[in-house]
Amino acid sequence: MGGDHGAVEVVPGALAYARAHPEDTILLVGDEAVLAGFLADRPANVRTVHASQVVEMHEHPAIALREKKDATILVAMDLVRKGEADAVVTAGHTGAGMAAAVLRLGRLRGVDRPALAVQMVGTENPFVLLDIGANPDSTPENLAQYARMGAIFSERVLGVDRPRVALLSIGEEKGKGDARIARATELLDATDLNFIGNVEGKDLTQFSADVVVCDAVLGNVVIKFFEGLSGYIFDLLKAEFAGSIRGRLAYLLMRPGIRRIRTVFDYEVVGGSPLLGVRGSVIITHGRAKRRMIEHAVRVGATTARERVPERIAEALGAAARNAGPETAGEASTPEAGV
Amino acid sequence: MGGDHGAVEVVPGALAYARAHPEDTILLVGDEAVLAGFLADRPANVRTVHASQVVEMHEHPAIALREKKDATILVAMDLVRKGEADAVVTAGHTGAGMAAAVLRLGRLRGVDRPALAVQMVGTENPFVLLDIGANPDSTPENLAQYARMGAIFSERVLGVDRPRVALLSIGEEKGKGDARIARATELLDATDLNFIGNVEGKDLTQFSADVVVCDAVLGNVVIKFFEGLSGYIFDLLKAEFAGSIRGRLAYLLMRPGIRRIRTVFDYEVVGGSPLLGVRGSVIITHGRAKRRMIEHAVRVGATTARERVPERIAEALGAAARNAGPETAGEASTPEAGV
Repeated sequence: MGGDHGAVEVVPGALAYARAHPEDTILLVGDEAVLAGFLADRPANVRTVHASQVVEMHEHPAIALREKKDATILVAMDLVRKGEADAVVTAGHTGAGMAAAVLRLGRLRGVDRPALAVQMVGTENPFVLLDIGANPDSTPENLAQYARMGAIFSERVLGVDRPRVALLSIGEEKGKGDARIARATELLDATDLNFIGNVEGKDLTQFSADVVVCDAVLGNVVIKFFEGLSGYIFDLLKAEFAGSIRGRLAYLLMRPGIRRIRTVFDYEVVGGSPLLGVRGSVIITHGRAKRRMIEHAVRVGATTARERVPERIAEALGAAARNAGPETAGEASTPEAGV
Repeated sequence: MGGDHGAVEVVPGALAYARAHPEDTILLVGDEAVLAGFLADRPANVRTVHASQVVEMHEHPAIALREKKDATILVAMDLVRKGEADAVVTAGHTGAGMAAAVLRLGRLRGVDRPALAVQMVGTENPFVLLDIGANPDSTPENLAQYARMGAIFSERVLGVDRPRVALLSIGEEKGKGDARIARATELLDATDLNFIGNVEGKDLTQFSADVVVCDAVLGNVVIKFFEGLSGYIFDLLKAEFAGSIRGRLAYLLMRPGIRRIRTVFDYEVVGGSPLLGVRGSVIITHGRAKRRMIEHAVRVGATTARERVPERIAEALGAAARNAGPETAGEASTPEAGV
């Protein structure tokens, strides 16, 4: 029900995934009366789970989750907690999604703080940037954990072999930056990760690393600036195209190319942002996600669950977590995604 | 002599300013034998000051400044220190420029740390972003000082009346972000500045504030990401234009428009970055600055000196600084810029 478009885009996106993946089951969580309107030709592997309430985009997450006990996001998280689903995918309120995950699923053992990661556009493959907003005031130890979690996601979900891990900082020289970055560099140097030191802001479009780690304030500013700046440049272009006959003619010629570029930006950057470090596979996609992006986010969620990313994080970060790993990350070969 | 292009671009840019501003005097600091080659038709208000050495872009600033006592950047700073020039403009090594300024001019009284500011592109006028790289590990008190310095620059040099000052953070809600931002919010709320709270990454192209304040790591990542991302988008466009006959035709039609957009980006973002908080007017422009950007940077330097920005910062930040203000910020109506 969530996101800027609600069921109108979320349901068709989920159905598209379901049709392409008959081995998986999709659970649509929401008002069944509303959902029914979009399910005229539902595939056999799509079910609905009723939830009567929705956290609206303007609401304060903590308050909304306290007051709306039957909110879709809570019902979906509970499906994962009870082992009835393997992953949650949401286009709804990001803060509510993160809060509901921590509230209902909890942190993995050994993880001090979850981190929200994003797949970001680059000159080659997308890379993983985290934390983009789960928790500010991270410590060097937090950053080192983010690096480990991001590397597992990169390896297992994006298929990168020995992902290059870097810290986002002010200079390329290893350890350069502030005190937090200097200390995180020491911690990461002592791990078996493929840690390559710092990347700078200009490297973010150069595919210089597969996993880029930073504090939430930095990551959040980067990702929102990315959206703002790319949108701004496309707006300037649009004005030039629309502003003259020459421009309108040029646009007719260039339309496929412009579309290709826009798609790269819309799709990769926000296609599926995993909340790493909680006991389950949770994908938070963009509020403005349309069906294609929703389908992509469901795929990321299914892969995250199938590849047992949460369990691998628990194994890597807490020896004690092995026996208490997330129920979601069992041997199931048919992830069920609560959208 | 500095920057990617050296005297080839720096001298013509400075001469263009000199011709347009006969009331000001330009001092060109560098190897006089080299400079002579570019001064065939020098205006009467242009002089040269010999310096035999240059800090190269790859050198470590502290080491280079220790070993090259006759480096152009040191000679230029000394001209300001001795009252023989009113502003320094450099396209050379940014780190060396900042270090030389602190070394030879010193901090203004009441200023704990200088900050490097940049004028950044926006949907309307450029706004001021600082610190973009002078000093990481800023305290809330440092951020509050940056806000004051940036507001003075915005008001005096960019002509903004009661500039809106904001902190760059993770959410729009006032005080939201990390502990440093929360405390800086309290400090700024207690000032008479026109403090409007937070701006987010997406607001950076929306002209939501006139002065945007952040720690050096964040500011540096933003400004370098800005360059990297805008360059990346233009590269994608170029590839689309070049990749087909339709594209090449479209490019012919759109060339003036594309140029206009590129100019906005090249020019405004890096036209003239003041190092605020030192005892003198110091403008550090981009290494890749060409003559038009150099001319703009000289103009920013002259205005900064003429408007007595350093002295006003000292007045605002340290009562004791009034009598010990920078010599450069006297009553002089004819700034001399050491380029």
